[in-house]
Amino acid sequence: MKLVIGNKNYSSWSMRPWVLAKGLGIGFEEVMLRFDFSEGSPFYQALAAHTPAGKVPVLIEDDGFAVWDTLAIAEYLAERHPEAGVWPRDARLRARARSLCAEMHSGFGQLRTHCPMNIEADLRAKGAELMAAEAGLRKDLARVCELLENALSASGGPFLFGDFGAADAFYAPVAMRIRTYGLPVPAAVGAYVDRLAAAPGVRDWITQALAEHDFIADDEPYRTAPSQA
Amino acid sequence: MKLVIGNKNYSSWSMRPWVLAKGLGIGFEEVMLRFDFSEGSPFYQALAAHTPAGKVPVLIEDDGFAVWDTLAIAEYLAERHPEAGVWPRDARLRARARSLCAEMHSGFGQLRTHCPMNIEADLRAKGAELMAAEAGLRKDLARVCELLENALSASGGPFLFGDFGAADAFYAPVAMRIRTYGLPVPAAVGAYVDRLAAAPGVRDWITQALAEHDFIADDEPYRTAPSQA
Repeated sequence: MKLVIGNKNYSSWSMRPWVLAKGLGIGFEEVMLRFDFSEGSPFYQALAAHTPAGKVPVLIEDDGFAVWDTLAIAEYLAERHPEAGVWPRDARLRARARSLCAEMHSGFGQLRTHCPMNIEADLRAKGAELMAAEAGLRKDLARVCELLENALSASGGPFLFGDFGAADAFYAPVAMRIRTYGLPVPAAVGAYVDRLAAAPGVRDWITQALAEHDFIADDEPYRTAPSQA
Repeated sequence: MKLVIGNKNYSSWSMRPWVLAKGLGIGFEEVMLRFDFSEGSPFYQALAAHTPAGKVPVLIEDDGFAVWDTLAIAEYLAERHPEAGVWPRDARLRARARSLCAEMHSGFGQLRTHCPMNIEADLRAKGAELMAAEAGLRKDLARVCELLENALSASGGPFLFGDFGAADAFYAPVAMRIRTYGLPVPAAVGAYVDRLAAAPGVRDWITQALAEHDFIADDEPYRTAPSQA
């Protein structure tokens, strides 16, 4: 089984199934395609060769069968690895975890637009500006915090539904944004963001993102060069 | 079990679980909240009373447990009614159906923005204008047609994966847009749109949408009054 992904520093969608599978010990071969959004680029050529979906991430079975879009990949992993704990065992907690993932999947457009994932960058000054200027961003962040606080308070932690699972994987890119942009969150959410960043799959992703040293201008609305670090 | 929805003429997200449950014979009580997007409106007040999600649709069990966001509702219905056929029985077809639903769930932003669902309206002239002017809309429509044609050709029809199921329910609002805006589609897609509009749950939704006679200005970027019909 291969998982085709984009740059780890930038690809928030790729991060979800990668950290989910890694975090739960589900084995896969990684195929990383360097982002290049110019027409007919090597990125798009490789993507077309790999998948009918036209975007990353895509999971590809050994015989070429492709599963795309992060929620479909999560469900596929859950069915193929029923003991791995992709979803909570309790039916209602499972439904709630799916509600959180589905809301993330279709929503939070302002948070996505204004604060694209950029693990390597320190954009705390920009984050403060954006929080002051953008009501939609403040609203999205408030909703994220509400969802996270409710889930953590119901489960008792350490992760959203107790053990690490799909809901945590789906909110991991948001945790990265909270760090990069220094977004103000309640203490319980901040502590969860720290725990999530230290969880095995997430920690590995962050380490590898920091090692990329690949500056993709199309993914950099705020910087013209990488951070000095 | 209650399903809280918005106006049938406009609420594309509400349409999905409603036509899915109706089409598969899964019983529920409908609670329709008339759209009103002004701050503190009766719509928002009722929504807050019904659900922690802050939007429609939401499925509410008799004891108040809420499941929101259409993909999570579809999975919940599938688990509660394993014989109903929400997803295909074959594991790979099931994965593919979920890929189609998840891609619809997070994508097609241009199609959504330019062609909001409006079942009662005849906006074919506007549709022709939009198709000429908006490259993003043309791209979204081409992708929708590619997904639909591939699925229909693989299954042999009459619905995307043979019998009516979640994938059809998720593409039903797009079928409505294709009709309202007269969007140009290949013959196989046009025939599918007609079959889908005639499917039991979808047909009922359309009939009730046409009976609403409720003009919501916030959902009408192109008209100032309802059609004379």
